Amino acid sequence: MSEIIECIPNISEGRDMSVISACVNAVCSVDGIKMMNFSSDADHNRSVLTYMGNSDAVEEAAVRLAKVCAEKIDLRKHSGKHPRVGALDVLPFVPLRDFDTEQAVLLSRRVGKRIWEEVGIPVFLYEDSAKQDYRKNLADIRRGGFENLAQKTSLKEWQPDFGQGFHQSAGVTVSGARFPLIAYNFDLETDDVETAKKIAGKIRQSNGGLPGVKALGIYLKERNCAQVTVNLVNYTLTPLHVLTEEVRRLASEYNTGVKQAELIGLLPMKAMAEAAAFYLGLADFDPDTRIIENYLL
Amino acid sequence: MSEIIECIPNISEGRDMSVISACVNAVCSVDGIKMMNFSSDADHNRSVLTYMGNSDAVEEAAVRLAKVCAEKIDLRKHSGKHPRVGALDVLPFVPLRDFDTEQAVLLSRRVGKRIWEEVGIPVFLYEDSAKQDYRKNLADIRRGGFENLAQKTSLKEWQPDFGQGFHQSAGVTVSGARFPLIAYNFDLETDDVETAKKIAGKIRQSNGGLPGVKALGIYLKERNCAQVTVNLVNYTLTPLHVLTEEVRRLASEYNTGVKQAELIGLLPMKAMAEAAAFYLGLADFDPDTRIIENYLL
Repeated sequence: MSEIIECIPNISEGRDMSVISACVNAVCSVDGIKMMNFSSDADHNRSVLTYMGNSDAVEEAAVRLAKVCAEKIDLRKHSGKHPRVGALDVLPFVPLRDFDTEQAVLLSRRVGKRIWEEVGIPVFLYEDSAKQDYRKNLADIRRGGFENLAQKTSLKEWQPDFGQGFHQSAGVTVSGARFPLIAYNFDLETDDVETAKKIAGKIRQSNGGLPGVKALGIYLKERNCAQVTVNLVNYTLTPLHVLTEEVRRLASEYNTGVKQAELIGLLPMKAMAEAAAFYLGLADFDPDTRIIENYLL
Repeated sequence: MSEIIECIPNISEGRDMSVISACVNAVCSVDGIKMMNFSSDADHNRSVLTYMGNSDAVEEAAVRLAKVCAEKIDLRKHSGKHPRVGALDVLPFVPLRDFDTEQAVLLSRRVGKRIWEEVGIPVFLYEDSAKQDYRKNLADIRRGGFENLAQKTSLKEWQPDFGQGFHQSAGVTVSGARFPLIAYNFDLETDDVETAKKIAGKIRQSNGGLPGVKALGIYLKERNCAQVTVNLVNYTLTPLHVLTEEVRRLASEYNTGVKQAELIGLLPMKAMAEAAAFYLGLADFDPDTRIIENYLL
C-alpha cells in the first residue's frame, strides 16, 4: 500500500470546452495521476475535477492546473451563478490512504506557496489548513466574490496566506485539507428561484438548520428550474437521506417537489450505504463490516 | 495485489453456542484467514460464516470446518425452519480479487474431494461448479431435505460428485463457485405464516416472479412474526430496491407491512449504492466511477 491523496479543484469555467480540456490535460500530464471524475455546468459556469495520486504527483498537477487557469480564465469577463474568487477557485485535498490530515495540511501549504511563487496567484488556506479560525469557512473567504477582492485584500485581516493582493484576472485560490465533502444538488419541480432560496435558507447550518450543510438557491437556465445547491461538508453529522428528506419536506411545504438529485464529483461508500440502509429498512447494518469491498481496501 | 476468495459456509446449527464457536474456531485456526462476519439464527437453526483468504487458506479452513461439523452436528436430532441436507450444508466460494470463476470452480472441487476423503461426507457440486445443468440449483439438490437423502442418493441421477450415499449424521455438503448472493430477510408486521408463504410464492423466480429470486415464507418464534426469507442470487437481475418495493407492495395487498429487513452475511457495495441512488432520486449515478473507495481497490 502507498499513500493516496484526492484533489478536487473547482474551476471557474463551465462553458468553454477548449479551456476545460486544457485544464484536464494539465492535470493528466503528470505521471501517476488518475483522473477520477470531471463535471462541468454551464449555469454554474464551473467545473469540478477529481483526481488522485501520491503527494508529489498531486502537488505537481495542482500547480500545472493553476498555471493553465491563470492563462485561460479571466474572471473580469466571467458570469455564473456560483460564488467564486478565483480562476482556480478552490483546491481541496483529501487524504484517502496512508496519509493523514496533518500531512494533507502540509501538502496544501506547499502547493499554495508554489502557486504564488510560480504562477503569481495569491493563496488563502482554509478548513484544516487555515492558520486562524475565522479563515476555516470557505464562504467567509469567498464573501463579496471576485469583484470585492481589491477591497477585501486591502484589509489587514484578509491578507492572503501566500502573496499579497490578488491576480488581476485569476483572483485568488483557496487551498486546504478537508474532510470528504459531498457536493449535491436538488433540482426542484418549480422554476421559482425564491423557493429554492427559502429552502436553502432553512437547511443551512449557519441559520440553525442542518449541521454540516451549506446551501444556496439558484435558477438554472439550461434546465429551466430552480435548484438548491448543497455542500454537505460532513455527512456523518447530517446523513444524505436526512438532508434529502428535509429538502423533500420543505419543497412540499412550498407546494413543489424535488425533480431529481445530482452528485458532483465523488462520494464515500459509507454515505450511500447508510442512505440505502435507511430506505430499505435494514436493521443493524454496519457499512464498515457488511460490505464486501471494505475488506479489499 | 494477491488472490482473495470469499467462502460463506452455511452450518445447520444456530442455537448451541459451543458448537457454533467450535466451527468459528476451526476456520480461524488457519493462518491467513480473515473472518468477515458471523451470524446465527435460532429459528432457522442455522449459522452463516463469511471468511476470506487465499485459495490454500480458504481450502484448508473449509476442510477443518467440515471435520468439526461432522463431529458436533447430528442432523438426526436437528430441527429448524430452514431447508438443509448437511451439517455443513452449503459451501459457496466467491472470487473477490485476482481469481476467476474457473479457478473458484477448481477450488470448490478440490475442497469437495478432500471433504469426502478426509471427513467422509459425500459432496455435491452446484452453481458454476455443477457438472450437469440439473445440479446447478441448490433447491433441486436440497429438495426432500436430510430426511430424504437415503432415498435420493440411491437414485442414479442423484449420486454425489464425491463419495457415495450420505453421512449418517452429517448428511451431504453442497459445494460450488457462485456469484455473490445476497441473503436477505423481510420480517412482516403479521405473525401469519401463510401471508409470508404467499408473498414468497409470488416473488420467487421459479413461479414466474422476480428473476434471480428464491424465497420461502416461515414463522419466527423468537421474533413472533412471519418472515419472507430470500436468496437474491443475482442482484444485477433484480436490484435490492426492486425486491424490497415488491415485497412491500405485496405485504400491503395482504393488509400487512414489512417491519424490518435483515441482511445475512455481506453484500457488494454496488447493491447498496444502486438502492441508495434509487431512493435518493439521484440522476446518472454510476457506482463504479462515483464512489471514492472503488479507486482504492
